[in-house]
Amino acid sequence: MGRVVRLGGGAEFDLIRRFTEGSGPLPADVMLGPGDDAAVFRDGWVVSTDLSVEDVHFRREWLEDHEIGYRAAVAGLSDLAAMGSSPVALLLSLAAPRGGAVDLEAVNAGVRAAAEGHGAVVVGGDVSRSPGPLFLDITAVGCTAWPVQRSGAEPGDHVWVTGVLGASASAVRMWTSDRVPSPGLRAAFAHPRARVDEARCLVEREVVDAMIDVSDGLVGDAGHLAAASGVSITLELERVPVAPEAVQALGADEALDAALHGGEDYELCFVTDPDAVDTTEFEKLFGIPVTRVGTVEEGDGVWLQASDGSRARPTRGGYDHWEGAGA
Amino acid sequence: MGRVVRLGGGAEFDLIRRFTEGSGPLPADVMLGPGDDAAVFRDGWVVSTDLSVEDVHFRREWLEDHEIGYRAAVAGLSDLAAMGSSPVALLLSLAAPRGGAVDLEAVNAGVRAAAEGHGAVVVGGDVSRSPGPLFLDITAVGCTAWPVQRSGAEPGDHVWVTGVLGASASAVRMWTSDRVPSPGLRAAFAHPRARVDEARCLVEREVVDAMIDVSDGLVGDAGHLAAASGVSITLELERVPVAPEAVQALGADEALDAALHGGEDYELCFVTDPDAVDTTEFEKLFGIPVTRVGTVEEGDGVWLQASDGSRARPTRGGYDHWEGAGA
Repeated sequence: MGRVVRLGGGAEFDLIRRFTEGSGPLPADVMLGPGDDAAVFRDGWVVSTDLSVEDVHFRREWLEDHEIGYRAAVAGLSDLAAMGSSPVALLLSLAAPRGGAVDLEAVNAGVRAAAEGHGAVVVGGDVSRSPGPLFLDITAVGCTAWPVQRSGAEPGDHVWVTGVLGASASAVRMWTSDRVPSPGLRAAFAHPRARVDEARCLVEREVVDAMIDVSDGLVGDAGHLAAASGVSITLELERVPVAPEAVQALGADEALDAALHGGEDYELCFVTDPDAVDTTEFEKLFGIPVTRVGTVEEGDGVWLQASDGSRARPTRGGYDHWEGAGA
Repeated sequence: MGRVVRLGGGAEFDLIRRFTEGSGPLPADVMLGPGDDAAVFRDGWVVSTDLSVEDVHFRREWLEDHEIGYRAAVAGLSDLAAMGSSPVALLLSLAAPRGGAVDLEAVNAGVRAAAEGHGAVVVGGDVSRSPGPLFLDITAVGCTAWPVQRSGAEPGDHVWVTGVLGASASAVRMWTSDRVPSPGLRAAFAHPRARVDEARCLVEREVVDAMIDVSDGLVGDAGHLAAASGVSITLELERVPVAPEAVQALGADEALDAALHGGEDYELCFVTDPDAVDTTEFEKLFGIPVTRVGTVEEGDGVWLQASDGSRARPTRGGYDHWEGAGA
């Protein structure tokens, strides 16, 4: 019999994540299997699943019911974006507690709004009661002619992120320390947007060597890129685009920490040849910044480089829901 | 704001099920959307999701951990079979309680065994902790040139089922009344088999007008076929192939009830032109019977016909997990 695994911090999650990855040689119809943001099938079909569990990924008192559905769906749509894929459809699996405490029509409306706002439709799913918390699993289905993997980063490449980071995690830190997040921070958590158009534009210009969405925090997700590509990534701390509202709420140090180790920004982290991105044009096209945050080198893992040029390994990794983030 | 829906019996589940169905006009890449066993995409790709929730779909004391994974996966594979689709891949979303009570490697091994036993591989998924019970959601991905829908039944057609019915539900009735199911009944619950090969054979012979898998009980699933096809289905009670071990355990009447209203047999219920199935050849090929259980007529809903020719509407519908089944 297998070893019993206890669920705790990040290491255990990585271990368990491995269980759902890798299952022998891939059949001919599977172009890309475990280890990326989504699986890719013949004809360019892309499929991903994302869990959203009450009291793990969100608390009911933080969100309207439709926002619970909306942000769960965006997590799936963001996986499609990370593959450079156009969203086509979502399937919603929903296990809901009895008693009418959750307005399921509103949850469903939120999922549909997210789908429709990103060019997809809801095509099915499954429903059950839950003897515990509210539980959503979003299956996101997309299509792309050029799936972008995590594994294409090469030494000398530049590392970029879209938008600003840390706002969503800052909202969580406010809530879990009995403070009220500003509307902007709250919106980052409750109404994220998947960077579908941004990803497709970058992919169509053929500048992207590797890409991931920032769902586990920049350090964690840069680490995934580094591991998949067999390289090291150095993040320059003063380049990290921390959300101004996060700085205002938490101060510069904790806001940077939220950007590095918080989760669910749903921005893109991607790797290109040096200076391959026209940042002015990107911001003009999409209304959000794109920022070079680091460099790919030989080696492994992630380094954090301070403004004086000194560098250190991160003392911790990615997002472990909000347990490691102050609560 | 939407109405608050309370989760209870079958009617509410139907209502909620509707929420996950239908989302405006389908885009060109979606061939078949809500309302069938799975969604169908361009190029014949088929995607389905199936929840398996502790204390709703199973109890931990009934199953080994690997069986929890195995049967959850078979539910998804059976949806693919019902579409006449070949399984290609599974994605596993798993939310597990802390504390090591569940051997996640064993659950995962069960999912993989089911995948490999039906010609598929595990290509990804998501993992979270659960603050409540164990949750699994299986996304099943398959491919077919000829997706079979629920909607092709026509008056005069014959209605068939593969295998025997009621064994899985009988095991549940034994457990929930503090009895011990026989090994055969237990195996029907713990180690079902999706009728992938049987479905493909039937579809390749072009005899099937409509098909569904028997996951909600024969009455419920025949009702789904009738509703989707805009017809009535009359089931002849004495033709229903009730599992002999179920009769032995529960007596003829309750075993028939389990076959009609129990769930999770994962047999196929399908509709053909009259007498279009060579039952002898089918049993020789697959080692299980195929039985004509009824007839399609004009009208709506399901009728149950007794041996004296009298008929009545079912007093209740399909499977509501085991709550309506004695517990």
